[in-house]
Amino acid sequence: MIDYKTINLGHGSGGLMTQNLLDAIIFKAFSNPYLDKKHDGAVVKIEGKIAISTDSFVVSPIFFRGGNIGELAVNGTVNDVAMCGAQPKYLSLAFIIEEGLLVEDFIKIVNSIKDTAETCGVQIITGDTKVVERGKGDQIFINTTGFGAVNPKGNIGAKNIKVGDKIIVNGSIAQHGMAIMSQREGLEFESTIVSDTTNLNFIANDLINEFGHGIHLFRDATRGGLASVLTEIASEIKKGVSIIETDLPLDRQVAAACEILGLDPLYVANEGVFITIVDQYIADEVVKWMQKDSKGKQAVCIGEITEAHPGKVVMTSTIGGKRIVSPMIGEQLPRIC
Amino acid sequence: MIDYKTINLGHGSGGLMTQNLLDAIIFKAFSNPYLDKKHDGAVVKIEGKIAISTDSFVVSPIFFRGGNIGELAVNGTVNDVAMCGAQPKYLSLAFIIEEGLLVEDFIKIVNSIKDTAETCGVQIITGDTKVVERGKGDQIFINTTGFGAVNPKGNIGAKNIKVGDKIIVNGSIAQHGMAIMSQREGLEFESTIVSDTTNLNFIANDLINEFGHGIHLFRDATRGGLASVLTEIASEIKKGVSIIETDLPLDRQVAAACEILGLDPLYVANEGVFITIVDQYIADEVVKWMQKDSKGKQAVCIGEITEAHPGKVVMTSTIGGKRIVSPMIGEQLPRIC
Repeated sequence: MIDYKTINLGHGSGGLMTQNLLDAIIFKAFSNPYLDKKHDGAVVKIEGKIAISTDSFVVSPIFFRGGNIGELAVNGTVNDVAMCGAQPKYLSLAFIIEEGLLVEDFIKIVNSIKDTAETCGVQIITGDTKVVERGKGDQIFINTTGFGAVNPKGNIGAKNIKVGDKIIVNGSIAQHGMAIMSQREGLEFESTIVSDTTNLNFIANDLINEFGHGIHLFRDATRGGLASVLTEIASEIKKGVSIIETDLPLDRQVAAACEILGLDPLYVANEGVFITIVDQYIADEVVKWMQKDSKGKQAVCIGEITEAHPGKVVMTSTIGGKRIVSPMIGEQLPRIC
Repeated sequence: MIDYKTINLGHGSGGLMTQNLLDAIIFKAFSNPYLDKKHDGAVVKIEGKIAISTDSFVVSPIFFRGGNIGELAVNGTVNDVAMCGAQPKYLSLAFIIEEGLLVEDFIKIVNSIKDTAETCGVQIITGDTKVVERGKGDQIFINTTGFGAVNPKGNIGAKNIKVGDKIIVNGSIAQHGMAIMSQREGLEFESTIVSDTTNLNFIANDLINEFGHGIHLFRDATRGGLASVLTEIASEIKKGVSIIETDLPLDRQVAAACEILGLDPLYVANEGVFITIVDQYIADEVVKWMQKDSKGKQAVCIGEITEAHPGKVVMTSTIGGKRIVSPMIGEQLPRIC
């Protein structure tokens, strides 16, 4: 039973108050045989190669149009594991709560984590809860670490990328960043843009099942946007990346918002956008296949890997000119995820 | 090259500034084939059952007598995995840095993580770095998630505990908590007490190799101290736990400090103390074996599992009386780990 309205330092003590918070909210939401043991760790079995990824989520505001920090914390890590060519199965979950967080907000976040985990098919198997004094945190930070078995039918890795490979993106870019930005204090700008946070694990795994070794790489375009992912890949593979600006899927409202604020949508964060680099001979088929999946309806080929300009991303602009897409330096917008 | 003295928001952007910070400090310190891929996740292989544990560390101050937040973040999670009867092998590492953290402090912490990970025999294989605005964090928070293979020779679990089993502790209690407390602002009290933070993975694993199924449980006595661990166990196994106050290993200086501050050392946090519950017939042998290990020099039997007072911990006091050891409610001292 919860007879308090806010979370305080005692809830991070490891004593009865912590136990009460965990029992009434966490264990109730996530009950499963691993977590129900209430130990400091969980024991699981995963066959074959295991992909692991960790992320801390510090997004502000914690509730935003289209999602909240809890949903983001599940989808973000699930997607990072999926981008390794693995099917995420288990998550650890660690909260750092600022004293004063409303219990009702915490419950909303936990329930959202529960629903999102169910959608993704992952179980929360171990966790941690810490509380810091007022002014030493910002409502709530969440770390998730995800684990899952690598799909043995796949062979995902930058080393497989060849000149001629096609670059396919699953959907419209820049939505998450613009959704957050439109809600930030002090920004005199309102919109109905919603975050694109979603789980990409099923579409990624199904792509491997369908196209096997024809799929060379997955990468989600989160912090730093599509530009950062592409410049990182170009630099890693020491080949060129060519993209066509007019082929980039970009919602009109998002494009307009970017223009108003002077932002380049290529650098704005996404949470449900990924690229896949595939063998050129199957690219059209992959695009058509993705368009039938709810997470890939707007799938489109946006470019290819080239011999020319190794290590660089070159974009053919709307009016036909070419420009180098530079890596982002700092960021226009902190705490986007 | 690092040409800045403090960490700022741009270092959490995911762009070139983040890359520079990671290359110059993180990748340099932890270089290994998993991390060098610089992907969002790592792929490993672990045979058999896998133990997983996560913890966020928010200790204040971040540097304290006997350790720092980095060392604690490695040892803490390594020990949680070890307490599952597993040998930790890999760690994920996620930082939440408050803008303004001195780069030299960050480097000290990273180097300490590196040294501690080497001591523990674990590799940092994936990570994350976020930066929050001044006043929205407290210098640095660290999450580590650890995993490793369960030792197949062992059978660690509260379900194995029988009436008559002996409870053995490896060393002096209450040191970590009192070391932190003596350094907190506003506490007019100085001492030379040092934290007991250390890694317990080798002693735990060796105990399993030596005594097999005779070892029934491991539990480290961190937040909430020895009392919290024992009361949790009693409540879980629905048997009694009896301990003898005079048998508890307690440093004189620590005892004196607790007395001055009116604290019960049973509830004060440890970072290098664990209990093991073992078959009564091997208890003496286990104690002698542990005393030969550097992490168990003060090992001693402090009590046993009883039919009487199920679910409760009863301590025979120095003067011969008996008292119930209650679960801790809140905490005397927040942010101890």
